[in-house]
Amino acid sequence: MEQEPQALAHADAKETPAGHEHGYSGRKDEHLKRLRRVEGQVRGLQRMVSEDEYCIDILTQVSAATKALQSFALSLLEEHLGHCVANAVEKGGPEADAKVKEASQAIARLVRS
Amino acid sequence: MEQEPQALAHADAKETPAGHEHGYSGRKDEHLKRLRRVEGQVRGLQRMVSEDEYCIDILTQVSAATKALQSFALSLLEEHLGHCVANAVEKGGPEADAKVKEASQAIARLVRS
Amino acid sequence: MEQEPQALAHADAKETPAGHEHGYSGRKDEHLKRLRRVEGQVRGLQRMVSEDEYCIDILTQVSAATKALQSFALSLLEEHLGHCVANAVEKGGPEADAKVKEASQAIARLVRS
Amino acid sequence: MEQEPQALAHADAKETPAGHEHGYSGRKDEHLKRLRRVEGQVRGLQRMVSEDEYCIDILTQVSAATKALQSFALSLLEEHLGHCVANAVEKGGPEADAKVKEASQAIARLVRS
Repeated sequence: MEQEPQALAHADAKETPAGHEHGYSGRKDEHLKRLRRVEGQVRGLQRMVSEDEYCIDILTQVSAATKALQSFALSLLEEHLGHCVANAVEKGGPEADAKVKEASQAIARLVRS
Repeated sequence: MEQEPQALAHADAKETPAGHEHGYSGRKDEHLKRLRRVEGQVRGLQRMVSEDEYCIDILTQVSAATKALQSFALSLLEEHLGHCVANAVEKGGPEADAKVKEASQAIARLVRS
Repeated sequence: MEQEPQALAHADAKETPAGHEHGYSGRKDEHLKRLRRVEGQVRGLQRMVSEDEYCIDILTQVSAATKALQSFALSLLEEHLGHCVANAVEKGGPEADAKVKEASQAIARLVRS
Repeated sequence: MEQEPQALAHADAKETPAGHEHGYSGRKDEHLKRLRRVEGQVRGLQRMVSEDEYCIDILTQVSAATKALQSFALSLLEEHLGHCVANAVEKGGPEADAKVKEASQAIARLVRS
């Protein structure tokens, strides 16, 4: 959980010069704040299960955490389309098509999850 | 996040005698293990954002965490239908209808989230 | 599309006496009206594609049709829980467990679709 | 249902010269074939309700129709990103931002429906 080996393939992206930074860099604090809130919700769920709280209240909290994760994903995706994908499209060529394809697959995973 | 005031309304449910305990009591350890894994995924997301990892890898991790939350919810719901709702239906009366209605609303929230 | 062979296994359910009829029988007209509206939406989508309408408008119409299908499913499910599942639970035995399991699997399919 | 007045605002898009046509034009036949299949599924649902078929079988068919609509939407969206959005991004300016925003909102509607 604490390791995402597939991310290593993109590790070099971190060293790219200004202008090629990830779209979400500017809103990092906002994203981290949002994710810490989701972490709190998931810890709240553990406490609710430990204390035998009512099933329906737990399900309501799951829906809230799921929606919060989705909002984070949608916000990240919008930045990705406006930065990474837009940059690739401006340069054109096969990289542009690959970025559109990659983004579409990520969208499909979100819609189906 | 750490407090769910609405749950207080059901606090007395904890003191109900054996046979009326929540459906999920028997699988508490399994649920807690699953939720700790989701917490690890959400912490992984924070680390990924902090370290400027690639947007698409972050979105993939969001999909995984969302699916894990959904699986927890579906497992809890099945137990709820088989215990709390089934108990209410066996007793009959308005309480039975109320439990079916309440479960249906929770399902609707899950389907729409 | 016009045939659902798996439904044959339940064909005998149609001949069960009053009281065992499907939960949705009472709201059949409402369900049919709703489904005819969805059919109209899907035909509208065909016309939009034929006439080269704008992608985003087509996607908006898809979201509307999807939501309408979900509302129909949730309404049917609530009736199913309140009738078929409740009847099985009142009788008890393995049939009760099987009905709860079957309903839970249908809910999982809805949540994941 | 048979009219989508908001689409009129985009009616002029139909007369744009080659190169500016909608991304989905090339796969129109495939899209129409897919939508006719969804229409058949929705008509199948009406027949199933009329003939009092088993609730769970109806719900299974709803999940199939919902998934088919989603696949259509995802395919259309990919073409939209690769054509309309990419064209706007290449031209740059406020129109590019507007197209990315508009696509992101359509994605959010799909994820939440």
